[in-house]
Amino acid sequence: MHGPAARSCIPHGLLPSLAVTAFRRHSGDIDEHRRIGLSRIQDDQQLAAVYDVIHRRRDVRSEFSGGPAAPAVLRRILAAGHAAPSVGLSQPWDFIVVEDLAVRREFRDHVLGERSRFADSLEDERSERFAGIRIEGVVSSSVGVVVTYDQERAAPAVLGRHTIPETGLYSVCLAIQNIWLAATAEGWGLGWVSFYRETVLADLLGLPHEIRPVAWLCLGPVTRLADAPDLERAGWRARRPLSDAVHDGRWGAGPPAGFEPADDGR
Amino acid sequence: MHGPAARSCIPHGLLPSLAVTAFRRHSGDIDEHRRIGLSRIQDDQQLAAVYDVIHRRRDVRSEFSGGPAAPAVLRRILAAGHAAPSVGLSQPWDFIVVEDLAVRREFRDHVLGERSRFADSLEDERSERFAGIRIEGVVSSSVGVVVTYDQERAAPAVLGRHTIPETGLYSVCLAIQNIWLAATAEGWGLGWVSFYRETVLADLLGLPHEIRPVAWLCLGPVTRLADAPDLERAGWRARRPLSDAVHDGRWGAGPPAGFEPADDGR
Repeated sequence: MHGPAARSCIPHGLLPSLAVTAFRRHSGDIDEHRRIGLSRIQDDQQLAAVYDVIHRRRDVRSEFSGGPAAPAVLRRILAAGHAAPSVGLSQPWDFIVVEDLAVRREFRDHVLGERSRFADSLEDERSERFAGIRIEGVVSSSVGVVVTYDQERAAPAVLGRHTIPETGLYSVCLAIQNIWLAATAEGWGLGWVSFYRETVLADLLGLPHEIRPVAWLCLGPVTRLADAPDLERAGWRARRPLSDAVHDGRWGAGPPAGFEPADDGR
Repeated sequence: MHGPAARSCIPHGLLPSLAVTAFRRHSGDIDEHRRIGLSRIQDDQQLAAVYDVIHRRRDVRSEFSGGPAAPAVLRRILAAGHAAPSVGLSQPWDFIVVEDLAVRREFRDHVLGERSRFADSLEDERSERFAGIRIEGVVSSSVGVVVTYDQERAAPAVLGRHTIPETGLYSVCLAIQNIWLAATAEGWGLGWVSFYRETVLADLLGLPHEIRPVAWLCLGPVTRLADAPDLERAGWRARRPLSDAVHDGRWGAGPPAGFEPADDGR
């Protein structure tokens, strides 16, 4: 039920609470969930499956196998994106599926140009480190999915957007994370490429004026998923401990009870 | 293995492919995944668990039970958020846990004021419909989590942000969706409140100048999750079919093979 595989992908700091609370939740909790018809996740193994996918997910550049992208799998993955929440139920996203290698090569060439520009902006030491980091799998992945934002959808009275215009863009990102997790669960990888000029990508795909590209997602089967983020393995940047990111009641108040740093600092 | 509960939460249009392809994937695929150590999701029931959570998730306003928010559960949920991908591994998010009822009441009052302002902007028919829609569970939920964005983190050279400044905000939203799905898997509900002025919320929580609030999340145990979004049930807006949202290669090209409208239009 909670074998070594499920254990190994969850940060060490979470193990005690997961082991005690999730994997061995006392049966009363579970019975209560079932009685009120609340949770269709029927046992701890299923809860662990969701956390497994969340913690195992990686931003993939180098591990795409190039194997076929089965349409039925792609449909399930994009349906997961389409099931995301959105401000005012506006569902302001669209998904453009790009298989054509000529289009993908053209986009890849643009991305590599932007990469050079970024490299030129770096100081020597950072520049050397950056040279060893791969930033895209546009051609090596099986398919590209460009996710876009339509700011006119459901306008003018988008319920929940009147004080914060960016909430429409926020909704698009929620769809992207659903896609990311569904792909991971399917045994695919996903890499979000953001080294591009929006106008270039908009022209490449014939986007109307009101449609803004938000992401180029490289998708497809992978040979494996790395245990740690590429940028951490390359020494670009290390992850921050959870306890630094959680504040009790007010900014800077320190973590609430239960969020103290774990043994490994996470 | 795929009982009525798991079936009922997945859109009808997906059932054929899920039933045939996911639930009865031929064993060759699965064996291949296991051989290369790719997927720790070890059977179709676990894949179904991930899709179940993605499709069952709701934006909750009315169904909070107010029951205790166990710290161990909250920690697992926020650790899921902290495991999200981020541009340049910047992890630009923070999570402020707000239990204090006085603070929550003050925020709720502000939200209700903004609600009135939005209502005043609506035409008669929309205004009447809006009157029946609840927009927040700030006090009725068990805890608030305010998610923020630090645009200075990892700056100036955030790898992948040089062409698109919003990618940092995008990362914060990916964390929010992880939190949403983890909460759903835990049997909790989450409601994203966006009827507020950012400066008001920033003042309330003592946010420094460079920290921007992105969301107030209402979190906690729920009595149930609705089968359809509140706004759809209230007749505010209907969901869009998936086949309208997927384009084959270029904007407006129609859906690719495998994405034709399903029997129920989804």
